[in-house]
Parts: sequence; C-alpha cells; structure tokens
Amino acid sequence: MTSRGHPLGEFGRIARFFKPLAAGFPGARGLRDDAAVFGVPEGRELVVTTDAMVAGVHFFPDDAPADIAAKLMRSNLSDLAAMGAEPLAYTLVTALPRGLDESWLEGFATGLGEDQQLFGIALAGGDSVSTTGPITLSVTAFGLVPTGRALPRWGGQPGDRVFVTGSIGDAALGLEIAYGRLDIPDEETRAHLLRRLRRPDPRMTVGPRLIGLASGAMDVSDGLVADLGHLCEESDCAAVLRAGTVPLSDAARGAVDGDPARLALAITGGDDYELLFSAAPSARDRLAALAAECGVAITEIGELRPGTPGEVSVLDASGAVLPLTRHGWDHF
Amino acid sequence: MTSRGHPLGEFGRIARFFKPLAAGFPGARGLRDDAAVFGVPEGRELVVTTDAMVAGVHFFPDDAPADIAAKLMRSNLSDLAAMGAEPLAYTLVTALPRGLDESWLEGFATGLGEDQQLFGIALAGGDSVSTTGPITLSVTAFGLVPTGRALPRWGGQPGDRVFVTGSIGDAALGLEIAYGRLDIPDEETRAHLLRRLRRPDPRMTVGPRLIGLASGAMDVSDGLVADLGHLCEESDCAAVLRAGTVPLSDAARGAVDGDPARLALAITGGDDYELLFSAAPSARDRLAALAAECGVAITEIGELRPGTPGEVSVLDASGAVLPLTRHGWDHF
Repeated sequence: MTSRGHPLGEFGRIARFFKPLAAGFPGARGLRDDAAVFGVPEGRELVVTTDAMVAGVHFFPDDAPADIAAKLMRSNLSDLAAMGAEPLAYTLVTALPRGLDESWLEGFATGLGEDQQLFGIALAGGDSVSTTGPITLSVTAFGLVPTGRALPRWGGQPGDRVFVTGSIGDAALGLEIAYGRLDIPDEETRAHLLRRLRRPDPRMTVGPRLIGLASGAMDVSDGLVADLGHLCEESDCAAVLRAGTVPLSDAARGAVDGDPARLALAITGGDDYELLFSAAPSARDRLAALAAECGVAITEIGELRPGTPGEVSVLDASGAVLPLTRHGWDHF
Repeated sequence: MTSRGHPLGEFGRIARFFKPLAAGFPGARGLRDDAAVFGVPEGRELVVTTDAMVAGVHFFPDDAPADIAAKLMRSNLSDLAAMGAEPLAYTLVTALPRGLDESWLEGFATGLGEDQQLFGIALAGGDSVSTTGPITLSVTAFGLVPTGRALPRWGGQPGDRVFVTGSIGDAALGLEIAYGRLDIPDEETRAHLLRRLRRPDPRMTVGPRLIGLASGAMDVSDGLVADLGHLCEESDCAAVLRAGTVPLSDAARGAVDGDPARLALAITGGDDYELLFSAAPSARDRLAALAAECGVAITEIGELRPGTPGEVSVLDASGAVLPLTRHGWDHF
C-alpha cells in the first residue's frame, strides 16, 4: 500500500482505518509490504473481478460513506457469486480529494468492516492517492471456485429456461426516489427501495450452488433486459422474457400497481445485483430446493430460443411483444 | 469488464482496444465474463499489487498516452520485482472524461500492448467508467513467487549491507526538466532523464533472483532516503546511507556536477523504480555475479545498524552527516 501524492497524514490513515481491515488475512502482510501474497488451494482457481465507482456518476456525493462502501463491496461480491465463486479477499484503490473530512474515511472503513464480517472477505492491499476530481473508488475482489467449474456467461442453450434470484427493480425505483422523481408516501416502502439501491444483496450462498445446475450465469447490473441480452449474445441465442413473471418485492409491486409504466423501469433500470442464469427445464426441482435452502427466491422468467444472438423479446401476460426503449416502453 | 456510466460506444471500445490485450491470457475469458479465472501452479503463491495514477497528480495531462500506460504498468511491475515475483497478468481500471478523444485510448492501449510484449504480462480484466474529474487509472498486477519465499520489507538485520539496482535520481531530475525548473542544454542528457521519468525500467530479471540473497527488499518510489527509512522501520533498525556511493547515470552525474545540491534531489526525489534491498556482506560476490548476468548494476550504498527504527543517516564522503529536508539539504 503506497501513498504517493497524499498529505503527510496518509500513513496514519492507513494505520488507523485500513490495517484493522487487513488483520484477519495473513496474505495482506499487515499492509507492510509492496504487495499481498497468498496461495490458492489445490483444486481451486482464483476468480478476479473489478468494479469502480465515481461520485456523481455511480453514487451521490452526499451518500453515507458506509453505504458507498457497501455498494462498492457488494457489486464486486455479486460478480464473484455470478461466477460461482466464494469470496477470499479484496484490494482497494481510493482517489480522494485532499480536503476530505476524516469522518468520511471513518464511515467508509466502518462500512467495509461490516461487510467483511457479513460476507467473509478481508482487505489484502491497495493504493491511496489524492485527486482534484470526485471521489473515485475501486475494489478488485478475489474468490475461489473449483478448477474448471466457474460459471460462464456463454453456456446457455436454446430450450434452457431463464431464472433470476430475489427481486428485480427495487434499486431502479429507489434511484427515482433519490432523484425526487418518484413519490412513495409509505415510509417502510420507501426505505426498502432506497436500502436495496444503496445496499444490494449479493447472492453469495446461491452462486456457488449453481455450479452443475446453471448453464450460463451473470449478475444483473445494467438492467435485467440488457443483461439477459448480454447472456444471450455470449450464448449465441435469443430469449423470451415474460414481464409479468419477473419477481417484484412487495414495495416494488406497490409502486408498479400505482403506475404500470414503472414495470419497464424495474426491468431495465439496473443495479439489482441479482443472479440471472439459464438452466435446463429438468433443473427446476433442484432449483426450488436450493431456493428453499438458501432462503432466496429463484423465479423462472423466460427461456432461451434460437434466433439473433442477444435479441430479447419482452412479452406481456397475453403474449404480446412489449417494445422497450433503453429506459422504458417505446410508445412510438 | 463492465461499462456503467459510459457512452454507448464503450462495448466497441473494449472490443477494439482491450480485447486484443487479453487475447494471450486464457484466464481473461476473452473479457466476455463477469470476472477472470486462473489457477496458481503448485509450489507458487500469487503476488498482488495495485498502483493508481491521477492526471495532474502523478503525470502531466498532456503526457503521451503510451508513456502514461508504460509508467502505470512499470510502477506495478516494479512492485512485483521487489517481492521476487514474476509477472503473470493484470487488471485495469480506467475512469475517463466522457469527451476524451479516441486517439488517447488508442495510444494508451498501444503503450500497454508494447509493455505486455516486453515484460510478458497480459490483460485479465477490469472496469471502465466515466468521470467528471481528471483521467484516473489503476492497475492491479499479479505475479508468481515460490511459496513462502516472497521478499519481505522487514527482513533486514543490523550489519546487513544496503544495495540498489541501476541508477538513482534520473526521474527526479527529469521531473525538474518537465516542470521547466532545470535547464539541461545537452539533448541526449535531457532525453535520458525524461525517458527515465516517463518509462522507468522495472528490474524484473533481478527481483526473482534476489530470493535467497536479499534479507529485506522493496522498490524505490517515494525517494531513496524515504524508502530506505521504510525498509528500516519494518526491519526494526536504522541505516547509514553514503551519499557519494549512490549510483548515478552519466546524465544525472553531469547534472549533479553542475550543482551539488541536485544530489539531494536525486536521493530524495522518487519515481526511480529501482530495487532497494539489504543483504549480508557475504552475499557481495553472488550479487556481483547476478549484476553481470542480468546486465543491471547492483551497488552497495550503506548498511543497516542498530538504532531508532526507520532512522537513516546520510553521510558525505568525509563521513559527516548531511541534514536533509524532504526535498533537499537542510541548510538551517
């Protein structure tokens, strides 16, 4: 962990905020060295993913720093889950304005620490630099997967069914609330949607258990429809998505019932960090059992078909195609 | 590799500029998946290091993008070398202003590709986001080291001698030229100092060969005196550094002969990316042989002593202590 370009207090900051986060991971070498060093157990491969976030682009500058930490961590963890991997460690890069209040860093480190406990991951190293621009953060997360068994995006086959974990659209609706474009009078509903925006629930227990069940898998970050398109493109097939079967939380259901156009937002908005995967119809029973064991809903929402690679047809309850723009139904 | 917050052209950019850089590394999965997946051979551990750079802080915004790529890559490679590791792969995070010209990215990718060839490393994955601030880049580099043999900073013992590879001070003098604060009339000299600033020479062949020879090791990025202090602090000892023995290139020697105060700049300025290590006096012959084999100078510049941890006494040729401020001799 180096500190070039930073005020003199940086070594103190590392000692105070980051060394405790690395204490549980011997490979971090106490953040005292030029690099982390760790082994990978026999029969396992390393899974490596990176997600970056910029203030004003990926989060609001005045979001609680612990929430920012949670979102940064969980978006990376979700990528590990989508590969079928179990979390091991992560490195962190922070580019922070010089004048940033120490309490921000304290809240951020607290958020990281809480998620480390929750998800069984530890800090392995990183870099801290200063910037004249907005807060810029990235995490590189490391996970382990049985050798040769990582879940690929491209394993889907025509005839496979499409499944998704949890519920879709909470974060997109939460973002509308955060922007002041959606008014939800009920306090509990509003809180649920905002929490799911700020603190997504990566499906760490489900992901590794999909090995041997899912044919193709990824996580939903760009939006359900777009990401299903990506899975299809890599799998060289098309898909049908039945909009009426997409699982919604009670909170999202309430919002959509109030204005059906919000369903389009829910399935295109993104930031869900749910797992999206394809599986043979014969896997249904085992998926139902897995859902029950993990306490996470797994819902069938469509199927893969032969067709133009990446093309997703979104159907309503009557089977009619719903034309979509990037951000909603296409009414033209 | 995801692309949130970016213009629509981002998938095209990844396909054009980054996928070719990942072609030689199967673990990159063609940048088609949520993460990279690779194994670590038996008897080896993974070494992981991260360095970030921000335009206007770590490089000049109008530096050639291929030079920026080279510096980013080489500062990370130097950390691997300092651990005794051989390069394997890297991930890349770019936060770029939306309006950035495509030719910048082309030059940057070209620089990465050249260094991949030169140093035997390949792109494994990453993330591309947009920013309202300056260009912000980070690389996480992966290397391999024999299990349990990574070179620690903290292995130095009183009585060990201090060695450094290559030459010190070129980059610091180059930075003075870049700022317009140092006038070097000779074209070749000026070009050498600027090249060493922009394209440091990580000592990849020397690093792994120091295993079994060096007791403590790190690379010089913050400045020779400061970094020797770090090595001493971690090794719980003090050090003597003989300023007159610090190896200088012909170019730096010329600049220092013109103004002896520049020696202080050379040994405190940083960005050298040379290897700094301690070794028992009995290792001298083997180090001389290693230097000859690798074609890289290895010079003895001082020794570790009992004393206040981290305290470095810089001595002149007569053995008198030279008092230093952060950026030069302390004349007060």
